[in-house]
Amino acid sequence: MTRQIATALIGLGNVGRNFLRILEMKGERLAREYGLAFRVVCVADSSGVAVDPRGFDPQGTRRHKETGGRVADLPGFLPGVDPAQALAQLACDLVLDASPVNLESGEPGLSLARTALARGMDTVLANKAPLVLAYQELHRLAQERGAGLAFSATVCGALPVVNIGQRDLVAADIRLLRGIFNSTSNFILGEMAQGRSYQEALAEAQERGIAEADPSLDVEGWDTANKLVILANSVLGMPATLAQVSVQGILEVTTAQLQELAAQGRTLKLLAVAQREGTGYRLSVAPTALPASSFLGQCDGWEMGVEFQSDLYGKMYHKIWEREPLPTAAAMLRDAVNLARRR
Amino acid sequence: MTRQIATALIGLGNVGRNFLRILEMKGERLAREYGLAFRVVCVADSSGVAVDPRGFDPQGTRRHKETGGRVADLPGFLPGVDPAQALAQLACDLVLDASPVNLESGEPGLSLARTALARGMDTVLANKAPLVLAYQELHRLAQERGAGLAFSATVCGALPVVNIGQRDLVAADIRLLRGIFNSTSNFILGEMAQGRSYQEALAEAQERGIAEADPSLDVEGWDTANKLVILANSVLGMPATLAQVSVQGILEVTTAQLQELAAQGRTLKLLAVAQREGTGYRLSVAPTALPASSFLGQCDGWEMGVEFQSDLYGKMYHKIWEREPLPTAAAMLRDAVNLARRR
Repeated sequence: MTRQIATALIGLGNVGRNFLRILEMKGERLAREYGLAFRVVCVADSSGVAVDPRGFDPQGTRRHKETGGRVADLPGFLPGVDPAQALAQLACDLVLDASPVNLESGEPGLSLARTALARGMDTVLANKAPLVLAYQELHRLAQERGAGLAFSATVCGALPVVNIGQRDLVAADIRLLRGIFNSTSNFILGEMAQGRSYQEALAEAQERGIAEADPSLDVEGWDTANKLVILANSVLGMPATLAQVSVQGILEVTTAQLQELAAQGRTLKLLAVAQREGTGYRLSVAPTALPASSFLGQCDGWEMGVEFQSDLYGKMYHKIWEREPLPTAAAMLRDAVNLARRR
Repeated sequence: MTRQIATALIGLGNVGRNFLRILEMKGERLAREYGLAFRVVCVADSSGVAVDPRGFDPQGTRRHKETGGRVADLPGFLPGVDPAQALAQLACDLVLDASPVNLESGEPGLSLARTALARGMDTVLANKAPLVLAYQELHRLAQERGAGLAFSATVCGALPVVNIGQRDLVAADIRLLRGIFNSTSNFILGEMAQGRSYQEALAEAQERGIAEADPSLDVEGWDTANKLVILANSVLGMPATLAQVSVQGILEVTTAQLQELAAQGRTLKLLAVAQREGTGYRLSVAPTALPASSFLGQCDGWEMGVEFQSDLYGKMYHKIWEREPLPTAAAMLRDAVNLARRR
């Protein structure tokens, strides 16, 4: 018997559209293997919110957006209603937030998550902002209302760093967690090590579609720091905020410095580090020299990776190679399926 | 509120004793963070079974074994009763099987798992044999009786290969799964690449306590093949048996061959491979030359690792470094906690 999951998909950028594509590809398999059918009853983009209790067609909706259409043009458009307002009324089991990261206000994601969790809806985030700004509040709210809250797509794309930390390192005392969480800066450092200037490497990353037009979040280290804050809260049990992370980006790194390190068999990586200190952790993001042959030293170009050292589970290393938004959308799907299986 | 989990611990070798040690180390934390108290109401070793509904003291029981004591000497010893018979009567929530691997009969693990699952008890295996011989039967039984069945300790120690495959690669079409699953043969190949003979390398591994007195399961590839069968069934959805795996060990590898490969920047690894072929997989275990700089090429000595390539989740790489049985025991604990949290 297939269980219908009434789903709101907020955000129809790359990740949201790829989620729809996965529903097209895998709808039959999700029903057969997992007994689940995700019915998209609400979609939203920057033009607004549309609702259809019978469900939007994933392929039709995706193509509408890919050919320049807006949610405001869809049947079921609700003029003047924002996503949180729509969710306050809607009969819905699951909310997926793939809306843009806004680290000032957290909106629209933060109000959305508050509303969804308060109503007991399972909530899956690819958007880091609500977690960075209000992890503890959202976590408490989810527990009080018996709602699921999952966000494995927020750290290293489809690499299940959060899931491994929460489910596979049970009762561990993690001594050291460190990783490479931002592929734009990793790509730029790799190109510079081969002799290119920062500007050339950035231009290439932008041309290939890795880097944003405004790369400051990436190259100044804040994107990495956001992910470290999420891991500190969700995996290390530390109610950390961004203010507790010492952050240094890659803007002062020079091509000469990278080539000198390379000559010594070393490589520079923008590293996020949580180092045990007393009962807490020292959190930092900084360009760090590593042996070129080490695990993180070998996370190159498109790769992101993480290393856990703990008292119970030895040393564990995980990395991913991904080049498109599909894996991040797949990470939202896996969170949604795992939350639905708990019920 | 702390929930009492009446637990049977079958097998008090290295892994079983380390499980008791973890209960000593982490009992307070398991209660505080997970709300769980594992009360060991039944223990067994090759001398027999003992039962105490009030619970055996983990530290006392561990020390008893470490100083040469047997279960037959404990209060609550049940003469002439085997573990499956004891479990058929006992009030018990969870069974942990850390008994020796017996690939001919699967016993005592197979009868134990059948009895525990038939009675609806959550069952956690570190013992591969019951899964290799009867995966599909045990899986069906668990589903019919609503019992949990977990075994993340059976593949690569504490590296959560099974968990990642089952929970994090939701709906993926895995094209290629390959890995290094046996550290004895990995260690021997590494030593031979440095110029030692097979016999010297084996003697060193035995001296360090990595290799068994009879290393044939390891060096002939069968231990690796067992793990591949477990992954085929649990992760790839293929009801495979050992007969479907083409198996070649490392006995014909020569020091000269390894040194020649090294000169070419390559390295030889005993690789388990599941390669998509039509609607199924081709399963093999064989010494395989890899670029020395590749992820699996760099899994050295004590390390074990795995690589997944899939349509949804890019390429994922995971490895672990561990040198003692503690992580494998910890993997049993994490399975036990995750099963208890489902209820």
